[in-house]
Amino acid sequence: MSENKNGRKNRIPRGYLHEDSEKRIEWINNEHDFEFQNLLPNQPEDLKGIIENHVGYMQIPMAIVGPAIIEGKYAKGKFPIPICTLEGTLAASMNRGLYASSLCGGMKVKHFRQELSRAPIFIFDDLKKSEDFQAWINEHVEKIIKAAQSTTNYGKVLRIDQHIIQNYVLLDFILDTGNAAGQNMVTLATNVACEYIRQETGYDFFLDSNLASDKKASSRNMILGRGHGVIAETHITKSVMARVLNVDPDFLIKNWTYFPIVSAMAGTLGNAIHASNALTAIYLATGQDTACVAENSVGHFTIEKVDDGLTWRLTLPSLTVGTVGGGTRLNQQQQNLQLLGCDSSEYSSRKLAEIIAAAALGLEISLGSAIMSHTWTSAHMKYGRK
Amino acid sequence: MSENKNGRKNRIPRGYLHEDSEKRIEWINNEHDFEFQNLLPNQPEDLKGIIENHVGYMQIPMAIVGPAIIEGKYAKGKFPIPICTLEGTLAASMNRGLYASSLCGGMKVKHFRQELSRAPIFIFDDLKKSEDFQAWINEHVEKIIKAAQSTTNYGKVLRIDQHIIQNYVLLDFILDTGNAAGQNMVTLATNVACEYIRQETGYDFFLDSNLASDKKASSRNMILGRGHGVIAETHITKSVMARVLNVDPDFLIKNWTYFPIVSAMAGTLGNAIHASNALTAIYLATGQDTACVAENSVGHFTIEKVDDGLTWRLTLPSLTVGTVGGGTRLNQQQQNLQLLGCDSSEYSSRKLAEIIAAAALGLEISLGSAIMSHTWTSAHMKYGRK
Amino acid sequence: MSENKNGRKNRIPRGYLHEDSEKRIEWINNEHDFEFQNLLPNQPEDLKGIIENHVGYMQIPMAIVGPAIIEGKYAKGKFPIPICTLEGTLAASMNRGLYASSLCGGMKVKHFRQELSRAPIFIFDDLKKSEDFQAWINEHVEKIIKAAQSTTNYGKVLRIDQHIIQNYVLLDFILDTGNAAGQNMVTLATNVACEYIRQETGYDFFLDSNLASDKKASSRNMILGRGHGVIAETHITKSVMARVLNVDPDFLIKNWTYFPIVSAMAGTLGNAIHASNALTAIYLATGQDTACVAENSVGHFTIEKVDDGLTWRLTLPSLTVGTVGGGTRLNQQQQNLQLLGCDSSEYSSRKLAEIIAAAALGLEISLGSAIMSHTWTSAHMKYGRK
Amino acid sequence: MSENKNGRKNRIPRGYLHEDSEKRIEWINNEHDFEFQNLLPNQPEDLKGIIENHVGYMQIPMAIVGPAIIEGKYAKGKFPIPICTLEGTLAASMNRGLYASSLCGGMKVKHFRQELSRAPIFIFDDLKKSEDFQAWINEHVEKIIKAAQSTTNYGKVLRIDQHIIQNYVLLDFILDTGNAAGQNMVTLATNVACEYIRQETGYDFFLDSNLASDKKASSRNMILGRGHGVIAETHITKSVMARVLNVDPDFLIKNWTYFPIVSAMAGTLGNAIHASNALTAIYLATGQDTACVAENSVGHFTIEKVDDGLTWRLTLPSLTVGTVGGGTRLNQQQQNLQLLGCDSSEYSSRKLAEIIAAAALGLEISLGSAIMSHTWTSAHMKYGRK
Repeated sequence: MSENKNGRKNRIPRGYLHEDSEKRIEWINNEHDFEFQNLLPNQPEDLKGIIENHVGYMQIPMAIVGPAIIEGKYAKGKFPIPICTLEGTLAASMNRGLYASSLCGGMKVKHFRQELSRAPIFIFDDLKKSEDFQAWINEHVEKIIKAAQSTTNYGKVLRIDQHIIQNYVLLDFILDTGNAAGQNMVTLATNVACEYIRQETGYDFFLDSNLASDKKASSRNMILGRGHGVIAETHITKSVMARVLNVDPDFLIKNWTYFPIVSAMAGTLGNAIHASNALTAIYLATGQDTACVAENSVGHFTIEKVDDGLTWRLTLPSLTVGTVGGGTRLNQQQQNLQLLGCDSSEYSSRKLAEIIAAAALGLEISLGSAIMSHTWTSAHMKYGRK
Repeated sequence: MSENKNGRKNRIPRGYLHEDSEKRIEWINNEHDFEFQNLLPNQPEDLKGIIENHVGYMQIPMAIVGPAIIEGKYAKGKFPIPICTLEGTLAASMNRGLYASSLCGGMKVKHFRQELSRAPIFIFDDLKKSEDFQAWINEHVEKIIKAAQSTTNYGKVLRIDQHIIQNYVLLDFILDTGNAAGQNMVTLATNVACEYIRQETGYDFFLDSNLASDKKASSRNMILGRGHGVIAETHITKSVMARVLNVDPDFLIKNWTYFPIVSAMAGTLGNAIHASNALTAIYLATGQDTACVAENSVGHFTIEKVDDGLTWRLTLPSLTVGTVGGGTRLNQQQQNLQLLGCDSSEYSSRKLAEIIAAAALGLEISLGSAIMSHTWTSAHMKYGRK
Repeated sequence: MSENKNGRKNRIPRGYLHEDSEKRIEWINNEHDFEFQNLLPNQPEDLKGIIENHVGYMQIPMAIVGPAIIEGKYAKGKFPIPICTLEGTLAASMNRGLYASSLCGGMKVKHFRQELSRAPIFIFDDLKKSEDFQAWINEHVEKIIKAAQSTTNYGKVLRIDQHIIQNYVLLDFILDTGNAAGQNMVTLATNVACEYIRQETGYDFFLDSNLASDKKASSRNMILGRGHGVIAETHITKSVMARVLNVDPDFLIKNWTYFPIVSAMAGTLGNAIHASNALTAIYLATGQDTACVAENSVGHFTIEKVDDGLTWRLTLPSLTVGTVGGGTRLNQQQQNLQLLGCDSSEYSSRKLAEIIAAAALGLEISLGSAIMSHTWTSAHMKYGRK
Repeated sequence: MSENKNGRKNRIPRGYLHEDSEKRIEWINNEHDFEFQNLLPNQPEDLKGIIENHVGYMQIPMAIVGPAIIEGKYAKGKFPIPICTLEGTLAASMNRGLYASSLCGGMKVKHFRQELSRAPIFIFDDLKKSEDFQAWINEHVEKIIKAAQSTTNYGKVLRIDQHIIQNYVLLDFILDTGNAAGQNMVTLATNVACEYIRQETGYDFFLDSNLASDKKASSRNMILGRGHGVIAETHITKSVMARVLNVDPDFLIKNWTYFPIVSAMAGTLGNAIHASNALTAIYLATGQDTACVAENSVGHFTIEKVDDGLTWRLTLPSLTVGTVGGGTRLNQQQQNLQLLGCDSSEYSSRKLAEIIAAAALGLEISLGSAIMSHTWTSAHMKYGRK
């Protein structure tokens, strides 16, 4: 952690001029001992497996915020967060939340689960057959797992959960996919295992029952998790809240109570404010599949009065992120992973998940404070317009 | 519509080579009478209102698919769809669905609603006060609407709905935001109106109750809509389904029945398969706020047997897209809007919403067929890996 | 309100002996100026319209709790609450909550809506036809309302909302059903109106789309309400909480915060603790359709620190109760309605809805306190076993 | 099964006269070899553990319907179903559905799970402490289970699931409660186990986190189940459908598709039509806790075309019913359990759960057919009014 963490001298330079952008790149290089390069995009030939019908590249504006001070299981230290967005205010807001946290020692983060799932469906003529099938599955579960495991040296088949409704048997294949986001890995493993079942039993299947609810918010994934489960926590003192966030802890404690109640009425999944914003921004910068944000942005958000300040917490139960494969192998995306120290090492996807949770909590803190301090509109009028 | 719409000659060229990309740009230019340019990114100075702390641009691969043949209220004709993704298979898959549709006459699309909302909360000491407040609101509703309307020449305040729970009064401000996505517009209008209420009544408010569930999937937005509501519909014959989609209509009718049932069990909102994929891809290419996908990708998807084929339908009740302001003013994003004919004209945001719905239905058709024909895995093994 | 409301002398006598039951009936008669009779059940012939294949009567144990002190729009005064249950502890618990409230002045209750709905579905071949249909509906809405209104002198057709998804048009008929619960009233009115539409347009319909979600918990009914919407509120001081509820206000404020968060995770609708218990108990005693509890028990529950005590609030947005028709005309049920002063008068169903909300809040207060004070188990071990 | 199952001669006599009721009791006695008695209610002294503040009994009309022909794992044979309701048409409707099924061989039923849960919450100051706690739990899980198991000879502690969000650890105690509904059993077992944890670790808890969502519909209980999970299935031929249900299988297959779609839009949990009606009616007749219907009535309902008829299925994942303890020990309730053969025997609660699922499917069949054949209104006009 920087010696001067309470000072302004090592904060990210501001401004909209060309030279301001350059100063920020210098800041990255100096503060984080990095050599940020203006990389050329990949050649079309590199895009096999990533996109078909390629015609070029969209240039999505990228910013740098932070640093996030993180003490996680896998992420430890100071992290400059690269983000892409078109929403004026977002970068400034995430920066503000992370700054407030950093003034009070930063974020504690806990990765607690990594379980990607795929749930095929077997459909039966009658209940008798589905029951016989379940018995067969229970007897052959080791062989089924072996068939699934044969498709990957990299991932690990953890277990197969069974769910029974109507004349259906849903087999929920649960994998630790290592550093891969793992959607293709789990699809292939499940398919091979189900082909084995089909050959042995004669019963056909569809590979996707929608129980895994890939790329959709769902209760299943909120309750049981899919991908990485991470919790971020930070305590911010009353004085830092007053100075940086313009709100008083007691005022928030008293008033924020409406948020989960109205959320329940509106029928959102969980009570996070706008985790989708942070996830989208970091996913774009690090080569993640941004469409997964629809599924991944379900979260739980709370504040607690501790001493004279607030402890803020955010749980993201379902992050399907990775650091190998897919878009992560493109030049710029790989560079940003390197900047985060997530380009290699045994648990780099878990590290990335922890960084994302910390950054997302930073953004929640800032927006929650803006709503409570009536500065949300003015911030958007300032940063959200030409 | 092309004379040769059933032939292959005007289909998008394939391949991963540099010259294949160039052929596709030629295809765009020839087929759609366009001059697609390799534009430089905007200057940092242009990014005010779009991003703070800018350091550069991420190059997100862009593809072209289609053309989508659309007969909508606002979108009429042949549309090449620019999309950005990192998920191998997605472009090919959307292309396949749109192609199958185009062979049978294309998509019918219906824009049926444009109502962006923002729902502030007023909190009262007791029920008596909340009741008096409601009475006051009912008496002054015209003045409140006038205050909101005073903030915009562009949008139109349609009405203010009231929702009462506990000691809260939620005022749901509903605006037609014209061609703007309108999040800032509705925020400002609501804030000014609530400030008027505060001055007159002395009651304070928070600008966001979460009933509008900005950037989160919610029942409120599924039922009542937020932004644009659009329905896409296309009929595909048995023979085209066999040839292009590898599935039989009767087989789908019989088996797809499990999908809404398991979706209900998983607790997704609606029954769309992966609308988030299409939305993310087009949002990135057209300067939309991609984080909105979490909110916008809730949808209803069904198939119906008609004659010997299937009619496919997708409702997207909540699309917060626009064609002016925000990221749409950047060079490349603007060029893609021009390609879609959505850069100007009275109802270009509605036109864009219709195009998005058509493209999203194309993608649903293809994935639904892939799941049913057991080609989902093989397609991803082919297109989803290096 | 009784002069001795802080004393014990007018509380309900306790005990499981026959004479204890008699003392309680005396208490009802004395305290509430009533003549509670041990009525014979109705004759089988009276059951037409209520049950087919009648063979007898189940004797469901009934208790008396309260009195609830209520200051509502329609319910004003002291109300002894007749309830039926088989769950030991429930009567004692509701009694405790109501007693604590009564020591502090009782319940404020606000009836804020009465809108029973029935939502038929019209299904169309294509989007064009559904659009033409909507246009026709908009032109003929007055005639359609007139047709619906022609079926009842008693209820009032308030409006018809339209919801559009896929090739469906849902017409949501909204009625004020007066003192009737009104399920048959709204069904008949809707059916006649839809028959008129069918005759005029040739389009067929199904009377139930499930949007009204009759007898099921749903987001639609939580957000928009169905039947009566009522809020109950009571403030209980720190000293009464300590003495009657064994909990400290600050301890509750600090700890209850987990409840809406875990509720969101579990995927309940709303955050009430067990409104179903109170509703079932009163519905059985007053001739309501108890199966409606599945739909009606969705609620919002909060606590707020005010002065040194807590203000407790419960919103029940969807109570389909009535005081005429159905089971309310049976001897005993009618007697209990009389006991509550809900057997006649212009707004007796609204009065009943207010009493139910107050009683339900009493039960929430008691269970919430029991969970927080670790006495939940011991209470059930004491009252829930032989 | 009766020799004359296709004939009318052994059907339940109809009519609203006193002698009709008597004929029906004769029918019960003759057809089911029973001696149905007009029992006196229990003495007040018997009500300890069932109700406090007893003042008398509500007479709730009871009917008999069926017989249901059931081939389950536990329920096998012909069952007359005793039900209580105040909704005219309900008894006739359930009777109709069961009759149609019985003409085609009756119901197949499969009990597939019995897992009652209670989920206490432990709350921690920070993530570090919650992690240490989890480690401790994992090390001591056998002792914790032993502590829980020590409270009951009757039930069996199956396992303890852990769920982690924010600074909470939820321990989900899962019990097979034998023939008891088991709510008190699981509460006591969990409490004793948590007291053991508290003594050993010093960490306090609240016994209910609401994850178990006792008496509320929830996604957790729909996905993971609570209490008994049961599936009922019956095939009804085209001709029986035409004659008894007035609908054509193909017409239903074509049109029922809207039901799960609109259910998703309305935000119900699952797609059952009105399982709450059947559950409430049987719960009242058999001494169950009727408030549990709010939780138990979540279900999955589908139709499938098989041969020329339809196979109907209903899954009820969460039935908290029992055949010992609570209200089941009252005179009349016990008599009805005897009538169903559920008063004793090793798996009588599972048998009861199977009977309930069959009866509920009977009612679904009838209402689904009524909606599709436009006879719903006329049936209610005939049976639902004086």
